[in-house]
Parts: sequence; structure tokens; C-alpha cells
Amino acid sequence: MVGVDPDPAKLWPQAAARVTAATGTRGATGGATAHADTRALTAEALVAHCGALLEAVADQCVAAKLQLACFERLGAAGWDALERVAALARQAGLLVIADGKRGDVPTTAQAYAEALFGGGSGPFGAYPGLGADAATLNPLLGRDALEPLVAAAAASGGGCFVLVRTSNPGAAELQDQPATEPLRLRLARLVRELGEPHTQDGLSLVGAVCGATRPDLLGELRKAMPATPFLLPGVGAQGGSAQALRAALSEHPASAIVTASRTIADAWRVLGGDPATAAARAAAQLRSETWP
Amino acid sequence: MVGVDPDPAKLWPQAAARVTAATGTRGATGGATAHADTRALTAEALVAHCGALLEAVADQCVAAKLQLACFERLGAAGWDALERVAALARQAGLLVIADGKRGDVPTTAQAYAEALFGGGSGPFGAYPGLGADAATLNPLLGRDALEPLVAAAAASGGGCFVLVRTSNPGAAELQDQPATEPLRLRLARLVRELGEPHTQDGLSLVGAVCGATRPDLLGELRKAMPATPFLLPGVGAQGGSAQALRAALSEHPASAIVTASRTIADAWRVLGGDPATAAARAAAQLRSETWP
Repeated sequence: MVGVDPDPAKLWPQAAARVTAATGTRGATGGATAHADTRALTAEALVAHCGALLEAVADQCVAAKLQLACFERLGAAGWDALERVAALARQAGLLVIADGKRGDVPTTAQAYAEALFGGGSGPFGAYPGLGADAATLNPLLGRDALEPLVAAAAASGGGCFVLVRTSNPGAAELQDQPATEPLRLRLARLVRELGEPHTQDGLSLVGAVCGATRPDLLGELRKAMPATPFLLPGVGAQGGSAQALRAALSEHPASAIVTASRTIADAWRVLGGDPATAAARAAAQLRSETWP
Repeated sequence: MVGVDPDPAKLWPQAAARVTAATGTRGATGGATAHADTRALTAEALVAHCGALLEAVADQCVAAKLQLACFERLGAAGWDALERVAALARQAGLLVIADGKRGDVPTTAQAYAEALFGGGSGPFGAYPGLGADAATLNPLLGRDALEPLVAAAAASGGGCFVLVRTSNPGAAELQDQPATEPLRLRLARLVRELGEPHTQDGLSLVGAVCGATRPDLLGELRKAMPATPFLLPGVGAQGGSAQALRAALSEHPASAIVTASRTIADAWRVLGGDPATAAARAAAQLRSETWP
């Protein structure tokens, strides 16, 4: 399998040259237009590079593994480039593996499933996904987080590759060392250590995601990460209550932030009335419960 | 913090209505054009929905957490919508948190850092990133994988939130249960179990990523996941050798696939000559080493 990880700073020389020749411009017009030009031109060079790479090696490979981060760095133009490169890979007879190591809670995993595999539908009809033959997935969140992606892979006749033991040197610390304490505490220690050099006035720029659905764990996590800002999802629709979150607070006023999605955006479906008014009420209520 | 997780199937009614009124079309023209229309129209509705949501609740919040998956499901049009919603959030005085739970090996983490924070540069100059104030990160790959993202956050005056204990019910299995065996074996068991209902002729559609940089672990991992296809990164530039990978094979001919990126794409920088010729040579060599 050829790994396709295009780095704008390390493209094959002919890639950028072809774009310059074709467009006769180097995107030096200043301001937001320059940004749009730079991304679009860079994305064109990415496609030229990847196309030439695939053409050179396709007969030695069964698949192309497209590194999503390398396209994401160019925003919308990058995602467009990704789809064009995926099409080039298919034309060359290769399977397409989307390597983004995606992983999130079940409702969000379903969105990734649409993005990577077969798309979905909305008020204007069906929209397509990337149509990948397989995708790489991060299992940290657990079984329920992976299931929607496995199901989407199965439904589209594709597959997935779940991280088990990654190739980077730092993999050993979490993936190899046996430990009797729960993983969440090992992660807490890592987060605390990563944040120590970046701490000011008792608050670090390295924060932690700690679910509001388990408020009983928050005191222990706060003790393990005294200067770490906590992002607390799961209030409301996922079951957590705002008052139970006091244990997550440290002395610093910005030590914890509660986040709510469906509780706010879907409040009108529960409370009735106009969506904006219901959302404003739900947000105000959550705020007063959390910070009375 | 308001979580912004727009679901095309559950937008505020006025969102889709505004788009229909503005464009006078419902994108029913068939074929590839219909797909482009559908994504573009759906993305417009997403922006309208998110804009209305932010306007309703901004005075109750300090930040907006944008769920990247919800935009990614609409491809390039979705990423464009993401950037417009981020701008709306900033105009409303909110901080922007990019929630994609990104995590990858160090070189790739650097690409995510460019995408989420301050961008980078290439043959046509500097390109911008999303400019998020913070991003959510998945720590499973370890410390070295997080460091480029922490550094980029620091450099841009922002921060990050690393998963420690997630809010979904399935989080307990991996994050709470103490276990003496290494995490990679617990993940292997999860992968094997997830794949069992999707196994045919001794091969499952649920595969595993196992680094070629630790060939000594492959025998044990193969024993733990007998019907799991292995994706083996890290050959060459990351240090692994192809011959050492035999232990990853099972009886099924498709049980393992070796992937190489820089070894192939950058072969010309080592071997000299024209990039395509060098790449083809490197790919052929890797293939003959792996499958003699």
C-alpha cells in the first residue's frame, strides 16, 4: 500500500511547476484573496504530486492510504483535493484507505461514518461520503464509539483498521506498559505532565475532556490534574447534571467549562415554541445551574 | 460553551427554508451535479442553522465547540461551512473550540496542528489554518504524538483539551477497568470481538493497525487476532524492515498489508534521479522484500 501523505513543503518538483505553468500566477495578491489563492494553488500542487506518485507505483500496490491530515491542512480546497486524489487512486485500480484515525461518541461516530463511507441525507436529499474502502479508527472511546463506523463499513462493503499498537516511539508508554491503575488516571498524569511547562497563574493551556456523565470521578481527576482546565461534555442529553460538576472546579475561575449540544439546540423539541427562544432559555438555565 | 453539532436531518426549520427561498432550488438535477448541489445546499442550511443558534445563545456562553465530524460529512462544502461558522462565533464574541479529537504520529500531528491552528507554508507561500482557540485531542498514540499539537496551541496563544475520561457509556471498558495486561492486548481483544460478526472465510472486515516498528510484538498480536487483517505502517523511514513482518501473517493471503509513505515518495532524495522512477523502484523493492 502506498501511503499518500503530501507535505506542501516537500512535493515533487514537477507538481508545483505544473501549477505555476498552468495558472501563470503565484498567488501574491495580498489579504484574504491571497489566502484563497495560496490554498487553492497549493491544493492543485498536492493533486499533481499525488497523481504522479500514484501513476508511478500503482502497479506495485493494492491500495492507497490517504492521510487526511495532509489534506485537512488546506481546508475546503484540501478536502476537494482529497476527493480528487481518491478518484485518481480508484482509476489506477487501487483501493482507497482513509487514514484519519477517527473516533468519537456514538452520535458523532455516525457523522464520521457518513463522511468516510456512504454519506447521508438531509432537507435537500442525499449527499455522498468519501466512499473509502476502509478507514483507520481510534478505539480509545470504547466499543460503542466504534460500532457505527464498523456498521457503515459493513454496509458499504468496506472495512476498517482500528489502532492496536501504533508505530511511533511514544506508543510504548500507554500501549505496552502494564499498569493496574485505570487508564483514565494514566491519561490524567500524561495531561498534567504535558501541561506543566505551559502553566501560568495556576492554569495550564493543556486541558482535559472529562465526561459530565460520571461526576463521581471528577474529584479524583481534579486531584490528579490540579492546574488543568476541564471540558465537561455530557450534561443533559447524555445524562449528566450541572450541579454535580462542582467537584471539577479548582480555585481558578476558568478551571472548568461545561458544554451542551442537543440540550440547547434541540430544546424546542422538548419545551416547544420557537427554536431560538427555547435554546436561549436552555442555555440560561444551564448557566445558572452551573454557576449559581 | 455551546456545542455546535449540526445534523442535516435535524436542523432548525428556518435554516432549510431560508436556503430554499434564497436559491429557489431543491437540487434535483441528477447525477454528479445533484450531489454537488445537495452538499452545497445542505452546507448553506448548516451555516444558517448554526448562525441562528449562535445568535440565540452567545450572550450565555464563553465559547462555541464546533464538532468537526458534522461538517466533514459534507466534504469540501462542509469545511467551508465550518470556517464560516467559526467566523460567526468569533463575531459573536465567542472562543472557538475545534472538536475533532485528532491524534496521529508526530509528523502527521504536525499537519493537524497546521489545520487546526496557524497553518503552514509551501511553494506558493503561507496558507492559514482554522485558527481555533483550542482543539480536542486523542492521547492514545502517546506523548510524542501530542507534543506538536500542544506546541502549536502554545504558539498561537491557544490551548487544547486531551481526552481523559469520555462521556459515552462505552468509555468505562477501556478507561475505568484496571488491567494488568498491556493496553495493546486489551485493544486486540476488542478488535477481535468487534470483528467476529463480520468474518468470512477466516478474514474479518475489522482490521488492526500494528506498527512495523515493533515486529517482536506481531506474533503475539496475530495470536490475539487470528482473523484480523493487519495494516503495518512504519516500514522504512520509521525504522521497521519488511522481512521482520512475517509473524504478522495468518493463513489468509490478505491477512497483512504493509504501507509506506516517505520510503516511496521521498526515495528520490536518497537514491537520486527522477522522483517517479525512484518511487517505482522503492515500491518494487518493498514489495519483493515483503512478498518474496
